[in-house]
Amino acid sequence: MAMTDAANVASEEALIHDFLAPLAAGHSAALGLADDCALIAPEPGSELVIKTDPIAEGVHFFTEDAPEDIAWKALAVNVSDLVAKGATPRFYLMALSFPAAPSKNWMTRFAAGLAKAQTFFGVHLVGGDTDRRPGPLSITLTVIGIVPAGTMVHRYTAKPGDKLFVTGTIGDAGLGLVLHRQPTLAMQWLLDETAEAYLVGRYLRPEPRCAIADILRQHASSAMDISDGLVRDLGKLSKASGVGLRVYASDVPLSTPARKALAAKPELLSTVLTGGDDYEIAVSAAPSGAQLLERRAGAAGVLLTCIGEVEGGHDVVIEDNNGQPIIFNTTGWDHFAGVNP
Amino acid sequence: MAMTDAANVASEEALIHDFLAPLAAGHSAALGLADDCALIAPEPGSELVIKTDPIAEGVHFFTEDAPEDIAWKALAVNVSDLVAKGATPRFYLMALSFPAAPSKNWMTRFAAGLAKAQTFFGVHLVGGDTDRRPGPLSITLTVIGIVPAGTMVHRYTAKPGDKLFVTGTIGDAGLGLVLHRQPTLAMQWLLDETAEAYLVGRYLRPEPRCAIADILRQHASSAMDISDGLVRDLGKLSKASGVGLRVYASDVPLSTPARKALAAKPELLSTVLTGGDDYEIAVSAAPSGAQLLERRAGAAGVLLTCIGEVEGGHDVVIEDNNGQPIIFNTTGWDHFAGVNP
Repeated sequence: MAMTDAANVASEEALIHDFLAPLAAGHSAALGLADDCALIAPEPGSELVIKTDPIAEGVHFFTEDAPEDIAWKALAVNVSDLVAKGATPRFYLMALSFPAAPSKNWMTRFAAGLAKAQTFFGVHLVGGDTDRRPGPLSITLTVIGIVPAGTMVHRYTAKPGDKLFVTGTIGDAGLGLVLHRQPTLAMQWLLDETAEAYLVGRYLRPEPRCAIADILRQHASSAMDISDGLVRDLGKLSKASGVGLRVYASDVPLSTPARKALAAKPELLSTVLTGGDDYEIAVSAAPSGAQLLERRAGAAGVLLTCIGEVEGGHDVVIEDNNGQPIIFNTTGWDHFAGVNP
Repeated sequence: MAMTDAANVASEEALIHDFLAPLAAGHSAALGLADDCALIAPEPGSELVIKTDPIAEGVHFFTEDAPEDIAWKALAVNVSDLVAKGATPRFYLMALSFPAAPSKNWMTRFAAGLAKAQTFFGVHLVGGDTDRRPGPLSITLTVIGIVPAGTMVHRYTAKPGDKLFVTGTIGDAGLGLVLHRQPTLAMQWLLDETAEAYLVGRYLRPEPRCAIADILRQHASSAMDISDGLVRDLGKLSKASGVGLRVYASDVPLSTPARKALAAKPELLSTVLTGGDDYEIAVSAAPSGAQLLERRAGAAGVLLTCIGEVEGGHDVVIEDNNGQPIIFNTTGWDHFAGVNP
């Protein structure tokens, strides 16, 4: 998908008017994008949870990725974070930096992807900025969600004795990224086309667990979304909460395609447990509330699996079937140091 | 100022802990940066004005600029926007994208610049994100201000018959940018060192007119900050409000150094009136309230000058001393089309 071709968007004004304003239509906070800011009237008794996260071509997505997928991912990765806080996503601002004027075709598809994602996640575009600069296409979203005052779920509140859960399945996106870069590996991993497409799709189109936000507020002792790899992000949860975490590797929920790949290449376990882009949620809950948490998540259509427990100390231990700790060469993605799992 | 040297910041965690967390210290909305989002409890009866604006190396600042100045500018350009809405700046989130790990020295100075700007503008860091990617250093701030509900000042509410004002002096930063790029021009423009330093300083360290936010809410019929050049931004005001604007060029307030440069090189008038980076505010006010507006701005220490009036129609006319319209080759900076004045 060429980002730039003969029929390029002519100006910032055209970009806003033709492609972005429709995404803000009918929403009072956006002021029709006629102003360059958003105006948010908070509901009484609510608090706002605000998160900003840039994604960039070549780092978080590839130039040739479908514009619909790039749009989806830009919004999904931010929405995922809000959901982990127990917040209901409501608004977003978007700063777009293009190295060259995008083609009308690319922008049409990008805007269509945003429109679909907006509807799916229940958020609206309310403001932003566009410019041109050298370097990769960069999309910085700021998302705003609401919680009833005093109910935000934190990552620093896990307690020894809590049970540890994850939503969905782990490692699909990490495997999907490898396959997206090297499609020929699918054969070595004994995956058919459907299985390969599933894993790549999990990388390209993460699905934030919006249905679980309310439930987390009521039953979780702590939560955070898993974006940089299960092991690394559990390390952050452990550090923030001042607790140890014990995870039973065999209890980590895997999709059928991931299980197949792992059966063919057991060494992929490292990719599964340390690969990024899961956008699932790690949740801790007191044992007394754990059963209700599981039941309510299930009723909301979200798979929630107990993978271990919160302990004293400060280590994250991943145990194999023999009760031995698994040691990884890398714990996951460090955006800053640029460590690649 | 080398951005990278032997003593680089080792990791995202170190960057946050050593340099950014101190900027968030003591502010409850920041959650100590232990979480990756901000939590804002809005005051009853208030609304939030939210604005996002990225600045990038090579586009909005230069690699060799002092880190303190880059930090100041990143915050100032966003604060300026809020002030033009009549909002009191309160919080900001910051997404930092580095092409390579910055040196500790660079980050120390950058953080010191932010700390100083925070204090000056009355805002606090409450969240953000850092990553590494190819391309220019990019700093995307999302700033959040508050207004009493229903009082935000818009850019689409100027009315024919209103008087048109600007704060401060116009064109200093546009001239300063030219001098920053080509210091040898100072001699041709017959500027001494002090005058040159003044103009360059106006480019490097814009001064948002925070003292005027309240006054705008009470007396302005519309306002917007001037960031892409007076002529271009008045065009946006005109279009948003569906009005014409008439400006008397000789009434546009100029600093002494700008007047000197203009006396030496009259053709610099175009740079003065279409150059970007002023971060002053264009304000319209009904004639009945104009006098009070001027008086209160003056009492708040902000120079406010009437430069023309709001009319019917939809043109922005800049009149010379003979009542003839001045035609510019460019109207100002279009970030997207990349038109350079």
